[in-house]
Amino acid sequence: MQDFNFCIPTNFIFGKDSHKKVGETVSALGYKKVIVNYGGTFLQETGLLGTIIASLEASGLAVIELDGVLPNPRLSLVYKGIELCRKEHVDLVLAIGGGSTIDTCKAIAAGVPYSGDVWDYYRTGAPVLKALPIGVILTIPASGSESGCGSMITNENGWLKRGAGGPALYPTFAICNPELTYTLPRVQTACGMADMYTHVCERYFTNTPGTYIIDAMSEGFFRSLVEIAPKLLADPHNYALRSEVMWMGTIAHNDTLGVGRIQDWATHDMGHEISGIYDTTHAFSMAIMLIAWMKYVYRHDLDRFVRYGRYAFGISAEGASKEEVALAAIDCTEAYMKRLGMPVRLHEINIDDSRFEEMAEKALIGKTHIGNFVELKKDDIVKIYNIAK
Amino acid sequence: MQDFNFCIPTNFIFGKDSHKKVGETVSALGYKKVIVNYGGTFLQETGLLGTIIASLEASGLAVIELDGVLPNPRLSLVYKGIELCRKEHVDLVLAIGGGSTIDTCKAIAAGVPYSGDVWDYYRTGAPVLKALPIGVILTIPASGSESGCGSMITNENGWLKRGAGGPALYPTFAICNPELTYTLPRVQTACGMADMYTHVCERYFTNTPGTYIIDAMSEGFFRSLVEIAPKLLADPHNYALRSEVMWMGTIAHNDTLGVGRIQDWATHDMGHEISGIYDTTHAFSMAIMLIAWMKYVYRHDLDRFVRYGRYAFGISAEGASKEEVALAAIDCTEAYMKRLGMPVRLHEINIDDSRFEEMAEKALIGKTHIGNFVELKKDDIVKIYNIAK
Repeated sequence: MQDFNFCIPTNFIFGKDSHKKVGETVSALGYKKVIVNYGGTFLQETGLLGTIIASLEASGLAVIELDGVLPNPRLSLVYKGIELCRKEHVDLVLAIGGGSTIDTCKAIAAGVPYSGDVWDYYRTGAPVLKALPIGVILTIPASGSESGCGSMITNENGWLKRGAGGPALYPTFAICNPELTYTLPRVQTACGMADMYTHVCERYFTNTPGTYIIDAMSEGFFRSLVEIAPKLLADPHNYALRSEVMWMGTIAHNDTLGVGRIQDWATHDMGHEISGIYDTTHAFSMAIMLIAWMKYVYRHDLDRFVRYGRYAFGISAEGASKEEVALAAIDCTEAYMKRLGMPVRLHEINIDDSRFEEMAEKALIGKTHIGNFVELKKDDIVKIYNIAK
Repeated sequence: MQDFNFCIPTNFIFGKDSHKKVGETVSALGYKKVIVNYGGTFLQETGLLGTIIASLEASGLAVIELDGVLPNPRLSLVYKGIELCRKEHVDLVLAIGGGSTIDTCKAIAAGVPYSGDVWDYYRTGAPVLKALPIGVILTIPASGSESGCGSMITNENGWLKRGAGGPALYPTFAICNPELTYTLPRVQTACGMADMYTHVCERYFTNTPGTYIIDAMSEGFFRSLVEIAPKLLADPHNYALRSEVMWMGTIAHNDTLGVGRIQDWATHDMGHEISGIYDTTHAFSMAIMLIAWMKYVYRHDLDRFVRYGRYAFGISAEGASKEEVALAAIDCTEAYMKRLGMPVRLHEINIDDSRFEEMAEKALIGKTHIGNFVELKKDDIVKIYNIAK
């Protein structure tokens, strides 16, 4: 194993009706004034927003609201939130939603005590060591942001999607009630399951030698998700399945399945450039780029792809060459994404090859290469975008 | 999934030379005076104790020592530690060792701010909400105590082995350097791998319906450990293998592989009574009782034992009855324990049936039954001890 630090101080409060505990949870931590951040219309339509605010107010907390989070969340809303928090002397930022809302809250939390432009963190990668405390009520299991210290924000000035992170950005608590996800649109449920699959892949494909336990647990993750996904899409009010997927989204992205190894992340880097320019749904970009990336790199370590095929999909290696097994494993991955309803080629979402060079260049800003399993330079990235065409 | 809370605030500092960071780690947390607690002769013989104390002193920390931890750690040393900490105004308790040392330190940490007898926590099960902060330098991967909030102590008055726990007992940090385990005696390395296997079994065998991801990750755990164990015993200076096993010991016992389900723990309850009376090595008791427990309960859920056989040991269900597969899985578990050099029957460690009734009664003090997969009463427990004979 590579040397590592692992510390996730977040208190996960998981289960039925857990969102009704938000008031007592925040109050027990000693905070007084909360900004509630969200997007879309789901919270109002379902009455969930009212329930949550009532819980906060019943515990004597002052509440202000910040609406307007969009997918691929924008820097402009972050600036607005920072200003509001400073003006109102907010002492906890509460995200109600999924990755976009949580990442917006993390950016706001980082920005409030910072004297410069919060985009500095995203531009330079400097670690966020000071931030307002962050709470989460998770409604979309996908990003894993409730359990991580990273935040992805899109700067409308140049449509750059960039990440920041640091120990101050771990949520203090994350309330996870699977029932809140019953009414998620089918496409969002599916996107979540595509997204979390990719999170584990980015960690699984490594050159670190002698890995066992994290590999085996990750293979268990793939196998479970492949089994659960069609069941959940057919039975969206199934509490057991919803709870499995909710927790899977969390552990997929907090390094429970990633410690001690050099990870890859090229799929995310290439996907972010698509989402940044075309505002494509994150999971669509991920599904498309994961398949294309696998097709480009699999020969680098056939044994790993054979192992992946065997334990994630039960592909027998008997009577087949390693290359055949590897390609079968990639086919199974593609079939999984298709079963979720994900696009697996760029043309399916009306993206042509006109900006591949530009996207490759943007993915490499400030870097000599992306990826670690195979180091990718501009030429490689353009080739992968072409595979994804 | 059952409702759960999951919060492990411990900072794991994992890797080569990590123990040399102990001074800066403690100092950065603002503490001034440390009690260093350990047992055996290993630390002095290897010079490790000197290195650690030098690191603490180089960071300006005052250090006092408390030697004398024994396996199945004793309450008398805990009392001595509490007195010493109060007299010396210690502000952090540092364990250097494995489960016995860590559990001793947790008991000391709980006792210092408590006005009553620290055994109250062990006697009543009242949660420990206040304690001195605890640090760990792990030298024996086995108990997982570096990552948990529980502590097992043996009260010499009656030879009762009992557990206490509570959120205040999570270590603040745990330094894990796999190199420190190179020179562990073969039997201790093996015991660790028996112990952590049992920790995951206690969680795996559940009646909670619709479990997927934790099952699958646990099966990956079993499969990995079965593969690694003989390799590590043959090659004890292998860093990759040592690091895998060190991290496996940690995650085996912090509910990474246990959230959202009703767990069992009858094997531990029955094993503790053996260790409590005969001072038997913990892992020996566990190996013996796990096999006997499996033989007694497997018919309760044949499908789960079939699944266990399939994914942990690759046993094919083709052409065999469920019962045959289940029994084959139990045989594989027994073979694993034997390969580690564990005893698998009580007579191998010179324990006869003369005190089975007494042990069963002690296991049930304050309880109507032990275990949840199958609820065990006195009669069942005596039968299982007889299977283990």
